[in-house]
Amino acid sequence: MAENVGNAGPVVISEGPFRGWMTWGAGEDPFETAIGPFCFRGSGSAVTCAFEPKRTHLNGGGTIHGGALMSFADFALFAIAHEALAGAKAVTVAFHCEFLSPGGLDETIEAKGEVLRATRSLIFVRGIVTQEARALLAFSGTLKKMAG
Amino acid sequence: MAENVGNAGPVVISEGPFRGWMTWGAGEDPFETAIGPFCFRGSGSAVTCAFEPKRTHLNGGGTIHGGALMSFADFALFAIAHEALAGAKAVTVAFHCEFLSPGGLDETIEAKGEVLRATRSLIFVRGIVTQEARALLAFSGTLKKMAG
Amino acid sequence: MAENVGNAGPVVISEGPFRGWMTWGAGEDPFETAIGPFCFRGSGSAVTCAFEPKRTHLNGGGTIHGGALMSFADFALFAIAHEALAGAKAVTVAFHCEFLSPGGLDETIEAKGEVLRATRSLIFVRGIVTQEARALLAFSGTLKKMAG
Amino acid sequence: MAENVGNAGPVVISEGPFRGWMTWGAGEDPFETAIGPFCFRGSGSAVTCAFEPKRTHLNGGGTIHGGALMSFADFALFAIAHEALAGAKAVTVAFHCEFLSPGGLDETIEAKGEVLRATRSLIFVRGIVTQEARALLAFSGTLKKMAG
Repeated sequence: MAENVGNAGPVVISEGPFRGWMTWGAGEDPFETAIGPFCFRGSGSAVTCAFEPKRTHLNGGGTIHGGALMSFADFALFAIAHEALAGAKAVTVAFHCEFLSPGGLDETIEAKGEVLRATRSLIFVRGIVTQEARALLAFSGTLKKMAG
Repeated sequence: MAENVGNAGPVVISEGPFRGWMTWGAGEDPFETAIGPFCFRGSGSAVTCAFEPKRTHLNGGGTIHGGALMSFADFALFAIAHEALAGAKAVTVAFHCEFLSPGGLDETIEAKGEVLRATRSLIFVRGIVTQEARALLAFSGTLKKMAG
Repeated sequence: MAENVGNAGPVVISEGPFRGWMTWGAGEDPFETAIGPFCFRGSGSAVTCAFEPKRTHLNGGGTIHGGALMSFADFALFAIAHEALAGAKAVTVAFHCEFLSPGGLDETIEAKGEVLRATRSLIFVRGIVTQEARALLAFSGTLKKMAG
Repeated sequence: MAENVGNAGPVVISEGPFRGWMTWGAGEDPFETAIGPFCFRGSGSAVTCAFEPKRTHLNGGGTIHGGALMSFADFALFAIAHEALAGAKAVTVAFHCEFLSPGGLDETIEAKGEVLRATRSLIFVRGIVTQEARALLAFSGTLKKMAG
């Protein structure tokens, strides 16, 4: 199973374009530190996730790599589910997405979504990754809470 | 739509642990260069894809980040479909995966799979990402060939 | 590939609880005639699909069978995409869903959704099947228009 | 959540073309009784599922309806997982499929697959629906065991 909400939970970014947004603690998620930073603000269905696309996010065709968009969407699953998780740790059990449009370097890439259902052990989330008015990726995922 | 087979096609790696394996040309895919290198050898259903997990692939739980596994699976879709594409460029239209087990830093991570169907415009691929005997990720994807 | 918009297109139901709603012509879709009728009204993102659950839709656990919900969702993909298809025939290329809650016989089962993107050849649709206030199924699908 | 393994478990068919195969008890699964019968034989990864396509399984295009194939695939998830479930009841949590080729009325439709992973609470299954040598549907699903 996949991603794991860091023990220490999110921290507030103190400077730069995402000042006031939250992300996982520095070094707490090495992969997201390497390809991000990915950040979010708000809670519940009002969560907005964002990252600044850089040249290192591009594929051979000069558009944002599908893996970068899926990694961001995986981050977004946990940000959107953050309130529903109420501090519980979870892993991604299943993930699905459709690639709707190519992304570029021109604008911030955002993700919004909603918790469709939260049971005792599972949380179902879906969302859309956008760049300005353009929908890039539609995604959904199933998270499983980890025991204690 | 997402990933794009680089114009120049795969090149052979001339040194290191994956000497003789193929990857996209240096700098041709900035994202895969940054988080990879991902490489493959063989053709058709005999394709094997591989990468060496590093600390930068880890999530906050100390296992391989789901985004890293999905990025590798997206690479694998194109490596597995490489023969069927016969030089045509393509993009990922839809991607699905299940996370079966957590990955670690101990062993090379590999992916194998098969082209389920190739029509004039679409290629359906599925595969499994493994680490030694352990299945980490089951994935499937739909690729769309790009017009000329 | 899967479902096919009937040649004659939808017809208006002239009697019964769904009087004024649309469905495919009688006998035009034998499977939906057998397990439906499934019907819809409205257009674009205002489309509402509906069917009356009967005992024959139940599984061994006494709730609506997953296959019945998925069959209804497949119908809904085409109803939601009906305007975007503009008379073109299409097939389902890929389908994904999450089962959120069990359905029962108490209330009409409905589906609503949206066209996420329509390209020259593909239409991406997502939606949710509900029963009263309860979300039963979240689904998404990729439709491919058929040549002329 | 969706399908539910019937309380009484599978029974052996005593006559007809599928004599000796197993199915859920008569009337135990009303939906599958109505659109099936679906049956299976063997155990573990040697399970073969089958049904005889009839005119009532067709869509408006004269091929097997996607909903019929998905309903059969949902049945197959439980038949393939039957041994791994070891009598436990389960529901489908998530389902995914790609439609590879249209099905017809000419030959028996079969499904085979494998349990990719079974944890304490989840079972991951994938498989392929075929008609003779033709692959019609590739599917995967996540089953959740029900408490007690």
